[in-house]
Amino acid sequence: MEMAIGQLPHGTLNRITDVPGVRVGHCTVDEGNCHTGVTVVMPPCRNPYTDRLTAASCVFNGYGKTMGLVQVDELGTLETPIALTGTLNVGRVHDAMVSWMVKRCGEDGISLTSVNPVVCECNDSRMSEIVRRPVGEREVFEAIASASEDFEQGAVGAGRGTICYGLKGGIGSSSRLMRIDGQTYTMGVLVQSNYGASSDFRRVCLPADLAESDQGSIILIVATDLPLSARQLKRVLRRTSVGMARLGSYIGHGSGEIAVGFTTAPREDHGSFQTQTMLKEERMNLPFRAVGECAEEAILQSMWNAAPDTALDGSPVLSLRQFLQSEGNDGAR
Amino acid sequence: MEMAIGQLPHGTLNRITDVPGVRVGHCTVDEGNCHTGVTVVMPPCRNPYTDRLTAASCVFNGYGKTMGLVQVDELGTLETPIALTGTLNVGRVHDAMVSWMVKRCGEDGISLTSVNPVVCECNDSRMSEIVRRPVGEREVFEAIASASEDFEQGAVGAGRGTICYGLKGGIGSSSRLMRIDGQTYTMGVLVQSNYGASSDFRRVCLPADLAESDQGSIILIVATDLPLSARQLKRVLRRTSVGMARLGSYIGHGSGEIAVGFTTAPREDHGSFQTQTMLKEERMNLPFRAVGECAEEAILQSMWNAAPDTALDGSPVLSLRQFLQSEGNDGAR
Amino acid sequence: MEMAIGQLPHGTLNRITDVPGVRVGHCTVDEGNCHTGVTVVMPPCRNPYTDRLTAASCVFNGYGKTMGLVQVDELGTLETPIALTGTLNVGRVHDAMVSWMVKRCGEDGISLTSVNPVVCECNDSRMSEIVRRPVGEREVFEAIASASEDFEQGAVGAGRGTICYGLKGGIGSSSRLMRIDGQTYTMGVLVQSNYGASSDFRRVCLPADLAESDQGSIILIVATDLPLSARQLKRVLRRTSVGMARLGSYIGHGSGEIAVGFTTAPREDHGSFQTQTMLKEERMNLPFRAVGECAEEAILQSMWNAAPDTALDGSPVLSLRQFLQSEGNDGAR
Amino acid sequence: MEMAIGQLPHGTLNRITDVPGVRVGHCTVDEGNCHTGVTVVMPPCRNPYTDRLTAASCVFNGYGKTMGLVQVDELGTLETPIALTGTLNVGRVHDAMVSWMVKRCGEDGISLTSVNPVVCECNDSRMSEIVRRPVGEREVFEAIASASEDFEQGAVGAGRGTICYGLKGGIGSSSRLMRIDGQTYTMGVLVQSNYGASSDFRRVCLPADLAESDQGSIILIVATDLPLSARQLKRVLRRTSVGMARLGSYIGHGSGEIAVGFTTAPREDHGSFQTQTMLKEERMNLPFRAVGECAEEAILQSMWNAAPDTALDGSPVLSLRQFLQSEGNDGAR
Repeated sequence: MEMAIGQLPHGTLNRITDVPGVRVGHCTVDEGNCHTGVTVVMPPCRNPYTDRLTAASCVFNGYGKTMGLVQVDELGTLETPIALTGTLNVGRVHDAMVSWMVKRCGEDGISLTSVNPVVCECNDSRMSEIVRRPVGEREVFEAIASASEDFEQGAVGAGRGTICYGLKGGIGSSSRLMRIDGQTYTMGVLVQSNYGASSDFRRVCLPADLAESDQGSIILIVATDLPLSARQLKRVLRRTSVGMARLGSYIGHGSGEIAVGFTTAPREDHGSFQTQTMLKEERMNLPFRAVGECAEEAILQSMWNAAPDTALDGSPVLSLRQFLQSEGNDGAR
Repeated sequence: MEMAIGQLPHGTLNRITDVPGVRVGHCTVDEGNCHTGVTVVMPPCRNPYTDRLTAASCVFNGYGKTMGLVQVDELGTLETPIALTGTLNVGRVHDAMVSWMVKRCGEDGISLTSVNPVVCECNDSRMSEIVRRPVGEREVFEAIASASEDFEQGAVGAGRGTICYGLKGGIGSSSRLMRIDGQTYTMGVLVQSNYGASSDFRRVCLPADLAESDQGSIILIVATDLPLSARQLKRVLRRTSVGMARLGSYIGHGSGEIAVGFTTAPREDHGSFQTQTMLKEERMNLPFRAVGECAEEAILQSMWNAAPDTALDGSPVLSLRQFLQSEGNDGAR
Repeated sequence: MEMAIGQLPHGTLNRITDVPGVRVGHCTVDEGNCHTGVTVVMPPCRNPYTDRLTAASCVFNGYGKTMGLVQVDELGTLETPIALTGTLNVGRVHDAMVSWMVKRCGEDGISLTSVNPVVCECNDSRMSEIVRRPVGEREVFEAIASASEDFEQGAVGAGRGTICYGLKGGIGSSSRLMRIDGQTYTMGVLVQSNYGASSDFRRVCLPADLAESDQGSIILIVATDLPLSARQLKRVLRRTSVGMARLGSYIGHGSGEIAVGFTTAPREDHGSFQTQTMLKEERMNLPFRAVGECAEEAILQSMWNAAPDTALDGSPVLSLRQFLQSEGNDGAR
Repeated sequence: MEMAIGQLPHGTLNRITDVPGVRVGHCTVDEGNCHTGVTVVMPPCRNPYTDRLTAASCVFNGYGKTMGLVQVDELGTLETPIALTGTLNVGRVHDAMVSWMVKRCGEDGISLTSVNPVVCECNDSRMSEIVRRPVGEREVFEAIASASEDFEQGAVGAGRGTICYGLKGGIGSSSRLMRIDGQTYTMGVLVQSNYGASSDFRRVCLPADLAESDQGSIILIVATDLPLSARQLKRVLRRTSVGMARLGSYIGHGSGEIAVGFTTAPREDHGSFQTQTMLKEERMNLPFRAVGECAEEAILQSMWNAAPDTALDGSPVLSLRQFLQSEGNDGAR
């Protein structure tokens, strides 16, 4: 959907995959009462373990079970794809990521004995029988195999069972272009949206009883090809909360907000040293603006692209699309 | 001014001083090209060094010179009033706070050999000759002596020379009432507003050239009588950024955003131990909502209460009031 | 073994289980080239999900894959037993902990839809074929079922395949008694030791080629019945590194050092509030000293209690006991 | 004094000034009951405000009043010399640093409107009438003017009135050489030592009543010419605590331990970007080892170089030298 959030232009696909080489894959599970899945964000490198990208994380509200952040924060690098899934599935997805990385490294003749998968989650128990944990090795491998630039948004993959501001949430994405020194760089955000009280939503007026309290979490994955240090990336990630706040959230107690990001800008090796290019600090306003606009729009895209559905308890889960259309279709602006 | 920000009712004064016992004092300096000052937030205790309050800080953007946070974070307590001033004045105000605390403790027969003043700042160099540093012991003592519940807002004290979204900023405050278990608790915020690009402001449409980049900082002081632990207070402080984001900021590089807060809820001593009451974690949504609403309104109050003025370079600094009145006076809603 | 580390007396068992109610269980796996296992530290409560303990974590060196810390830091509570295992096993152990908690809560009539297991790890790939990941639900349930106060130390459970200062490491534990206001409180530490270059070891002189670089990680679990807030617990955990440094480590790049701790001191509910007792801050030296002494001795106990063994590559892994005996058996002092 | 701490060789001067271009200056104040002073560590650049160095801080125990860390952490840069003084003097020294920087920038034609001085402190109230605060602009300017490579150690400058493990403490320094890829790099540490209970000291056996509790603080300034990122510097700073622990401290409640460090390795500008060289992460063990050895020796040097003295209350403050000589002069090994 065409929205007009902010001041910066978006990329061709208006998705995180506008960052060159980044791909996204889903595997959606609909079995009995399980309506869940897994989404993977693939870094552009051939082998993420050997070609580590500069990375960072930012925990705005740590009421969540995301794995792998301790090492990302310490070393400032990402060494696997990033996986998103439902809360109780994280252990199984972590194990599947280990399997995939062992296999991947094996193909390169590397005998892997340690790896730090990053696995994020939202709680999709209102729409899925969460204790069943149906996402394992087969589903993760399938999501990775299906990864492409032109991925689906809405109620797919890790967004299959999520709810946002009382409406159907899901996976959403957006990108922004940044012009610096005659070059164009891209900022991309992908969200798994599962938070928000309906009375707080600022885009359209929603019935307050759709979601009375702000709980459930949001994951925001940030990718860019702009050269940034890990410290600078963390500063960028901190601004993802701006997108949420602008849509009306006060980032509730139960709404774990966690952002993980990486830059695809390469570092060059010279013996025992590496050379890293980074944006001058006084130019950081542009990526800050870009990530705030991306985050706000990615959340809206996750909602706009999700069809209406039904919760486990039989109650309807409406779509943002139903509210915007009744306002004459331009409400999303 | 009567605004209607959010869902919760405000207190009698709609200021941080609705928290029982909290007082605020200013000393404003207008001498030659100096248009600056100092504002103090006084905790309700008789001697803040001996009756330490539970406190916390939150640095959203650390491009600032605030003093005292290292110890506040480690010990979770506040042992002095909190002072706000212009950037280059912080050392002198810190020294003045030491003088005041030595004197205050001397009156209680305590020979003070260590104290941790909290001094916050914004850069008011667009309106004041900042290298002159005219705020010292006399000004700090005067601000403390003048502290009252019914304090002035706008271009006074530490807000004398600040600029917000390209308009005149200053000191602003707001409060919200929280009803829990049949009791009413108060959340109060006081801001020193000095940030924001005018094109980002979401309340009224401002000319983009008033302030082209988001720089300058904002300080947010939070007070409450709700029983919270230091960890919980930090969670509350993190939500002050919601107020800024809702008004349109993406919390720019140069816009240091720092929050400091305390609760006046007492702890009880039993020999070597203390007993602390704290809100159950699952009830935290109410203070989160309250602080977000307070922060948003406090910023608007700081702008609404500030008269138009002139910058050091002769350019006019307009008031939000001028833009709202032209919209029929209800624009602030 | 009787050692004399520090100034404080140890408890009856000189283990973490001197903290009333705490139990520890192991499951050791020896299958083919797999020599690994899992160790669980059980909090004293009937159901750790419903009777949450005050908890904290401290990451001194985050080169590790420990899971669950994001939420522990945010909420200051522990809601599961703590599990330790080998690096690549963490996903499977996490999943097994979810299964156990679902079952445990089911017995109490609670339908669990979210839980935050804490799973820690060291890399035991020098002694175990790590990619095989043989620790799953059966092993975790067995470790939990076997939990007792009088648990084994040395090369058992999660310590089966670890190496410390080039010698055989493993699980070790120690406790210290703290006398405050006429009451006795206990501090207990359990370590999974897997770090250290042999030339750095300060207890006995070791051949430098046993372990040339400091890598591998150490996990330190801290338990106490002393009433502390989550903030205070974090301060206590920070002092675990003192034990390592005293033994000669500079906490190498590859030696992830992560501490997780909890207090069994109860909080009392009053409607929407809780009352928590905490030690007065100026009395913190006693727990600081206690945890440093416990950590130093727990590491030595893990080494002393481990028999000599053989690495996967056939090289011998000697025991500290062999070096101390040759020094006349009093070397451990 | 020649000591033999650790495995790495020290530089020519065995001081922080072995890092090329770094200089240290003191101003000592002995007036009436005031026995205090200020010490400055000068970065090698012509103007530290315009030629900012990569910097970081690490707070192991934040019971201290150090100023300037908020911005150092956010931006990863240092823009002034680093000053050390007595606790209640920090405000006045901060103000003096502003004056010096305004003057320094004025000489370069820069009109300074914002600057972030880093000012550290220890509490020297046992030997100096601390409320008098005799260190101001004159003393700071004098310390800066006197800065040289061959500076004095012991009871001078900011170390004039400090006490360490119950003996006379002060300013101490040490350096280590690191050989990487055929190049030699230097790590240097300067400490202001003012902590430790005498019964904990592990170098010589001290009477327990010299200092019964561990209080007072230690500041550790780290300089290197090794190319490191701000994130890597923080990892290095974290290892300064190793030096304290090896000497016997458990880093007591009252012993604020704060480290600030910088690398003189230059960054190169290309338009809106900068290029930074950094050590490969897997090579970090060498600087970790170096900083631990430097910290341990710098503390001993601060004590060795301080003559015996008398506290304000008339009690003697002995020198480490007195204890080592009675052991045959080789005790420091």
